[in-house]
Amino acid sequence: MGITAELVNNILASRFDAIPQDVHHEAKRALLNIVGCALGGAQHPSMDITMGALGPFSGPPSASVLGRSERFDPLLASLLNGLSTHIHDYDDTLPRNYIHASAPVASALFAYTSANTVTGPDFLHAFILGFEVISRIGNATYPEYYNAGWHSTGSLGGFGAATAIGKLLNLNAEQLTYAIGITATQSAGIRDMFGSMMKGLHPGRAAQSGYSAALLAQQGLTSGLTPLEGERGLVAITVDSYDLNKIVDDWGVSFELRDNTYKPYPSGIVIHPTIDACSQLHEKHRLPLDQIAAVELRVAPLVKDLCDKKNIATGLEGKFSIYHAAAIGLGRGKGGLAEFTDEAVNDPALTRLRRLTNAIGDPDVSEDAVIVEVRLTDGRSLGMTLQGSLGNLAHPLSDAQLEIKFRDQAGVLEPAQIESAISACWNLAGFDDVSSMIQYCIPRQR
Amino acid sequence: MGITAELVNNILASRFDAIPQDVHHEAKRALLNIVGCALGGAQHPSMDITMGALGPFSGPPSASVLGRSERFDPLLASLLNGLSTHIHDYDDTLPRNYIHASAPVASALFAYTSANTVTGPDFLHAFILGFEVISRIGNATYPEYYNAGWHSTGSLGGFGAATAIGKLLNLNAEQLTYAIGITATQSAGIRDMFGSMMKGLHPGRAAQSGYSAALLAQQGLTSGLTPLEGERGLVAITVDSYDLNKIVDDWGVSFELRDNTYKPYPSGIVIHPTIDACSQLHEKHRLPLDQIAAVELRVAPLVKDLCDKKNIATGLEGKFSIYHAAAIGLGRGKGGLAEFTDEAVNDPALTRLRRLTNAIGDPDVSEDAVIVEVRLTDGRSLGMTLQGSLGNLAHPLSDAQLEIKFRDQAGVLEPAQIESAISACWNLAGFDDVSSMIQYCIPRQR
Repeated sequence: MGITAELVNNILASRFDAIPQDVHHEAKRALLNIVGCALGGAQHPSMDITMGALGPFSGPPSASVLGRSERFDPLLASLLNGLSTHIHDYDDTLPRNYIHASAPVASALFAYTSANTVTGPDFLHAFILGFEVISRIGNATYPEYYNAGWHSTGSLGGFGAATAIGKLLNLNAEQLTYAIGITATQSAGIRDMFGSMMKGLHPGRAAQSGYSAALLAQQGLTSGLTPLEGERGLVAITVDSYDLNKIVDDWGVSFELRDNTYKPYPSGIVIHPTIDACSQLHEKHRLPLDQIAAVELRVAPLVKDLCDKKNIATGLEGKFSIYHAAAIGLGRGKGGLAEFTDEAVNDPALTRLRRLTNAIGDPDVSEDAVIVEVRLTDGRSLGMTLQGSLGNLAHPLSDAQLEIKFRDQAGVLEPAQIESAISACWNLAGFDDVSSMIQYCIPRQR
Repeated sequence: MGITAELVNNILASRFDAIPQDVHHEAKRALLNIVGCALGGAQHPSMDITMGALGPFSGPPSASVLGRSERFDPLLASLLNGLSTHIHDYDDTLPRNYIHASAPVASALFAYTSANTVTGPDFLHAFILGFEVISRIGNATYPEYYNAGWHSTGSLGGFGAATAIGKLLNLNAEQLTYAIGITATQSAGIRDMFGSMMKGLHPGRAAQSGYSAALLAQQGLTSGLTPLEGERGLVAITVDSYDLNKIVDDWGVSFELRDNTYKPYPSGIVIHPTIDACSQLHEKHRLPLDQIAAVELRVAPLVKDLCDKKNIATGLEGKFSIYHAAAIGLGRGKGGLAEFTDEAVNDPALTRLRRLTNAIGDPDVSEDAVIVEVRLTDGRSLGMTLQGSLGNLAHPLSDAQLEIKFRDQAGVLEPAQIESAISACWNLAGFDDVSSMIQYCIPRQR
């Protein structure tokens, strides 16, 4: 049996109640995180641009977009959800293959579910399966595929969306094979686009193409039967070195969600230890900022090279400034979306902190560490060494920290909606109709 | 200046009246051919399936689909046009890179034009530029790209659609660059799909993604600036060996349309010489079929290997049967869509001819040749040697033959519509609004 056929059998044989409870819980954590990211990204200019360009081509508006009051057809809604979830680079990451797997799967699922009745268990099951499929195809082709220049979150993301929507549509084995085939031949997304709005559009297109592939397969459109493993299939034509067995090995026993990580800060990951350490100093000492005379950071030489930006003017630059990282940690004790705006970067108090911070590249410090020394105007000195920053697999965000991150991004909602949405995520398995949960994530029209 | 920037400058600097008249005429031949293919493909089951799956997601139905009475939003119409034009593998081919360039460009253009006012010269200009861009990117990456397994008609086709629609939208240089970038990162289509309905869907997706890329770029969505030539751009991540200069060299002097070819028969190209030679024998001698006692074909060994199918039951099998090729040539004097139906393959007269035909693989006969001997019941014998079959660059279909091919596929239209559509193609440059020409290609609702 070919790998595609075996994968299809595995998907169809999966039973929700056979999936361990820790995986159920991790799925809810991933959903809480991705819904928060969608709310945070929903006001990004790329969302208005995309709605302006494609909105006139929308079918009957039966679907909601997370964080927006406009309604569109479910396929366009899935694209818009995908864009908002990833545009701030704040969503979850699989350290094993750098895929942000929740974005394409959840984006398609929320669009579908806002227009169709789906129970909580069915929603969670579809999400877990879609997440698993993307990540496993990523594992089979990593690292050559990603290193070559494919943005796998986009180019492999459609497989997860097709799996999740195909599961909800109750596709049979033949239809699900075609859905995977139709997705494979629409697989796209290149890393030349990093730094542009396309990076956010990639999971949107993946959500939309996987979703539409499931619809086309349901109606009987045919594809090749070996889209992954064929001689001219997706894997063979993109990489020379791969291991297709990773797509099916230990299916139902090992779960990719267990290795998912959540970013505490919407910035380049190498400045995370500095934000983390400086936030801890802020929390512990509650320093009046005018008592800080100088800050010295010892970081890995690579971190200094990548993020040696002191004179900055935009939030985007702040995402890659080690000095801004120290300033927001010491000055505000956190690094949320509000700390990476143009306004924050031009805040006089933060600008002052940035100016009195120095960074030294030290080969003895690893990329996931920092040594901070803060000298005070009274001559005292405070120090901190941090190894392994918050958000890593070894130091995961707690459920409570995920809730804080959610609230930080959910300003578009009313406070009561925010708390309802959070508790709905945790209680998702009890919902008869997930669309009632989605309603908490739609801003009241003003 | 990078290749993408240079390409954009070339597109924007192009003036319609500076394009030689022979290229204008070849563009009209390509359009007559592709509209005919769209009419012939419009009733294929894949069209109803796709309409059934995606029609419910269509926006306001402002656009027509060639050969169908249903109306959809222009983006969905562009996808459907792309599917119908290519589903019978009967559209034009560039022998230099195996790209079927008209399908994605014309499919987007006809969809756009059916919903917007476009003059004939603007339509022709946009078509010529879109065709040129696809083919040149194909030349730059051929043969490695195609041989690896990319179906370049689909995966590069979007560049032509984005160029054509971008031209009609009067995009500026920055917008056109983004349109090309947005297209590059949606580039998709793999050869594992050959033999399934996906082969037809590929140019449809290309038309739709290039068209939507132009719309998104017009509204301000950003992409990377080096989508073709970047280190992680489309070309570098798909092939090791390429020549980007072919995208811009001799721009405005050499035109790819001059090397375009048109298939006289909707079948595997290696049986074309046999259909051609046997049709000529039919035309010359008007043989009563019951006087034919035996037929012997000498063909290249590869042709015998590929097409040695005598006991066949379906039209699809007939496309790859050297015996069926002889039968339709001698029996009907042509090989149109009607000769590759299940009905034709099961026609008793044609079945008898197939049975009394033998084929011999002869290393002295080239793949583009055939030696035919027909022995009659009265003992006489008729022979013909054909070298270089109809439709090759050396033996192009005449304008009149293209008209016959068009009529053969246009059964969905009324006779008066067919003649109006043909003369509209030849007179396209005189139209103030091409949508009036498109009306000839829409079946009257019954």
